[in-house]
Amino acid sequence: MRVKAATIAGLTGGKIEGDPEKEISGPGGIETATEDQITFLGNLKYEHYLYSGHAGVVIIPEDLILKEQVASTLIRVKDVYAAVGILLKAFEQKNEQESRISEHAIVSSDARVGSNVSIGAFTIVEAGVSVGDGVVLGNQVYIGKNCTIGQGSNIGDGVKIYYDCELGTDCIIQANTVVGSDGFGYSRDESGQFTRVPQIGKVILGDRVELGACVTIDRATMGATVLENGVKVDNLVHIAHNVRIGADSAIAAQAGIAGSTKLGSQVLVGGQVGISGHISIASKTEIQAKSGISSVVKEEGSRLFGYPAMDYMAFVRSFTIFKKLPEMWKRLNELEQFMKK
Amino acid sequence: MRVKAATIAGLTGGKIEGDPEKEISGPGGIETATEDQITFLGNLKYEHYLYSGHAGVVIIPEDLILKEQVASTLIRVKDVYAAVGILLKAFEQKNEQESRISEHAIVSSDARVGSNVSIGAFTIVEAGVSVGDGVVLGNQVYIGKNCTIGQGSNIGDGVKIYYDCELGTDCIIQANTVVGSDGFGYSRDESGQFTRVPQIGKVILGDRVELGACVTIDRATMGATVLENGVKVDNLVHIAHNVRIGADSAIAAQAGIAGSTKLGSQVLVGGQVGISGHISIASKTEIQAKSGISSVVKEEGSRLFGYPAMDYMAFVRSFTIFKKLPEMWKRLNELEQFMKK
Amino acid sequence: MRVKAATIAGLTGGKIEGDPEKEISGPGGIETATEDQITFLGNLKYEHYLYSGHAGVVIIPEDLILKEQVASTLIRVKDVYAAVGILLKAFEQKNEQESRISEHAIVSSDARVGSNVSIGAFTIVEAGVSVGDGVVLGNQVYIGKNCTIGQGSNIGDGVKIYYDCELGTDCIIQANTVVGSDGFGYSRDESGQFTRVPQIGKVILGDRVELGACVTIDRATMGATVLENGVKVDNLVHIAHNVRIGADSAIAAQAGIAGSTKLGSQVLVGGQVGISGHISIASKTEIQAKSGISSVVKEEGSRLFGYPAMDYMAFVRSFTIFKKLPEMWKRLNELEQFMKK
Repeated sequence: MRVKAATIAGLTGGKIEGDPEKEISGPGGIETATEDQITFLGNLKYEHYLYSGHAGVVIIPEDLILKEQVASTLIRVKDVYAAVGILLKAFEQKNEQESRISEHAIVSSDARVGSNVSIGAFTIVEAGVSVGDGVVLGNQVYIGKNCTIGQGSNIGDGVKIYYDCELGTDCIIQANTVVGSDGFGYSRDESGQFTRVPQIGKVILGDRVELGACVTIDRATMGATVLENGVKVDNLVHIAHNVRIGADSAIAAQAGIAGSTKLGSQVLVGGQVGISGHISIASKTEIQAKSGISSVVKEEGSRLFGYPAMDYMAFVRSFTIFKKLPEMWKRLNELEQFMKK
Repeated sequence: MRVKAATIAGLTGGKIEGDPEKEISGPGGIETATEDQITFLGNLKYEHYLYSGHAGVVIIPEDLILKEQVASTLIRVKDVYAAVGILLKAFEQKNEQESRISEHAIVSSDARVGSNVSIGAFTIVEAGVSVGDGVVLGNQVYIGKNCTIGQGSNIGDGVKIYYDCELGTDCIIQANTVVGSDGFGYSRDESGQFTRVPQIGKVILGDRVELGACVTIDRATMGATVLENGVKVDNLVHIAHNVRIGADSAIAAQAGIAGSTKLGSQVLVGGQVGISGHISIASKTEIQAKSGISSVVKEEGSRLFGYPAMDYMAFVRSFTIFKKLPEMWKRLNELEQFMKK
Repeated sequence: MRVKAATIAGLTGGKIEGDPEKEISGPGGIETATEDQITFLGNLKYEHYLYSGHAGVVIIPEDLILKEQVASTLIRVKDVYAAVGILLKAFEQKNEQESRISEHAIVSSDARVGSNVSIGAFTIVEAGVSVGDGVVLGNQVYIGKNCTIGQGSNIGDGVKIYYDCELGTDCIIQANTVVGSDGFGYSRDESGQFTRVPQIGKVILGDRVELGACVTIDRATMGATVLENGVKVDNLVHIAHNVRIGADSAIAAQAGIAGSTKLGSQVLVGGQVGISGHISIASKTEIQAKSGISSVVKEEGSRLFGYPAMDYMAFVRSFTIFKKLPEMWKRLNELEQFMKK
């Protein structure tokens, strides 16, 4: 497939600077894109590649002022990432075959399977499951009894979904993720031994929820662990029993949210963040990577950093002095010495 | 199934306040339980739901003094979580069918399989494996050569157990967990290249050991990585080669324990904690979430916080001042200015 | 198999102290090795076991000065871990059967499969895949379309490799790891909703790359996520889209590297470390466990600690004073009081 710069400008609503007839055959990274490829400048850290690189076409921000001459044909757009999304979608390889149910899958005769559904090899769909139209279940997947998989959802290879869980429409789950495992709930007797508290709730994922690879989402003790519409979750994230995550929140890789905590909508959680159990976090809160939140966040739009987390700027100010502590210690000693004289 | 409050009070050894004839049909969360449901008040943070909620029956602590009128029938018990455990067990859905070995499983003719064993589809049991009575192996499970799975154990879908590992009785493992993978052991030559040190030991899990989803437990270089009786491990935890964890310890989600470290019994490890290799941690030590332990903990019952971890209260006191560092810096400057005059 | 101390000394280039005729039947851990076993003293923390233990033979450092009498036969070597590597390799159980392709595997007729290849049960090899000579694919593995698996590589049970990924020769991947999942890339509109940016790049692993269990390596948005020759990655590590990791670097368990970051060669990353996106880290940098790196590291051989990470020794010095902050606070107060008088 060869595409002209003018066609891409049309698709993305951009303005061309250079040769509108320039043809490319696919996308490439900004460091390595060749004359035959299109790339993009999303992060200005990479601006030097724009001048030194050899890409055929580069998508750039509408208002970028060029510092040097550029050999590539440019397409100026308002939102680079949105334009790239449109572009890549056009190039995305359709890796699924036409929809078909593998002869090596085991689909219960008591499951309801919609139209245009693909089910991979060695995948198991238990009784009572409802699989919506256009769903793709990968290979070696397990869908437990009475689950609902909303239409258009795509479940990656090796994903395991325990019984009774509900997924909305257009959900995407990457490989080897687990949904609906038992929560970590025990009572402890006087001798210090643990007794398991049965976990008989479920997990509900709203529409357009996306989960990365090797994510774990525990079922509720009672009731449901809920991820509302549009929540995006990166790889290796842990979400404990009875957590609720508000719509359009995003949780970066390796973050963990302990039991019964509630996040508002549009909360942004950085990588490796930990959030304690039984607290609530106001909508639009932004939590810096690796921070630890151990108490309620009441104010919408809070920006938090550190562990235990503080206001972002307060943390930065304290940390600036932390780096000078040896100096401060010395100065305090000197002052004391001086006083004693 | 409909159950009377009086029946539940009998099961849990509780005392009824309200209508002993009140019938419920199942459990629900405290925020959402309906008149047809039973719920519980375990954490007093949720006490307001007791007054505003509509649950048919609520299990509460024996000695709770009510602040307002409650519409629900109450059952007062000594240990709420223990009572909930008893209650949920009664309601727990028996999701396993009667025990059976899937025709789509591959069970070596050289494996010993006890009575009442269930083996799921696409599961593999290698030669020399011993599967105890009443064991449930989920679907898409792999049990390597010469493993022992103690009676009553339940191995989740997609779990992989490498050769030679030994599980005691009544172990529970959630989906996609890995037991017995090679430890991360290399020698490094002068040029900086790594050479693999073969990992030929094994993993031994005692009785009643429970592992969450996507947990990884590496086999020993030589000898065994050991989790003693009653150890409970949450999701996404990493336990390295040659670690030993004492009886009835609990490890919360995403914690990691580096090679050859030994934990005493009844150690409580918070979420996202890291523990260095080659150290020992005294019994009954409690480690606050996200802390990092890099040296030996000798005193039983230590409570640790921070990274590098300190005594819990010492950390809290230092952190209180950390938040005031900008103020402290300013005051020190002013003092110095004043002295110079 | 019984082996004489003299034979082992010959294999490892060591010098015997004691009985060269001493026979052992296998290796054991230093705490528990019996008279019939060989063990090693790699870390001097365990030196007391040398005097109190009962191992038949112990491998020790060439220049170790004994503090007490030792009952075991000793073999003195220059590099204990290298010697152990040689030794264990000799003892390593060959757990694979002779190479064979399971009748329960699904191998596309459009895949190229080399000689001496083993493919486990319930494993899927898609069209266009190239499997090199001597490759072992475990059970329940998925290899997506057009992947290349270099000769001698060993892919563990349950591993999922998405389409188009390339593995070099002699790679080893532990169970349930995911290679080539979609990166976490979204554009966000003014209303706060996320739209997926398609991820159409791939993952390239060089030769001798080793990945632990439950690792996730995301494919690039465009171009490739690259791990160069000899990189070793421990369990539960997250490597985001478009990351590049230089040759012979090692990443310990549960570390995470965010998108587009580039590591030089021979970088050592401690457990639970987090590295921000879009930065570069100079070769031979050493990052202490649990640290967080949020800005460029320019100097080769840097040693970093803390979050945000500082020079190792600078962090240690600041942290020493952090522990004394309450004292410092008190002294500052007293000084101010004194001045007011």
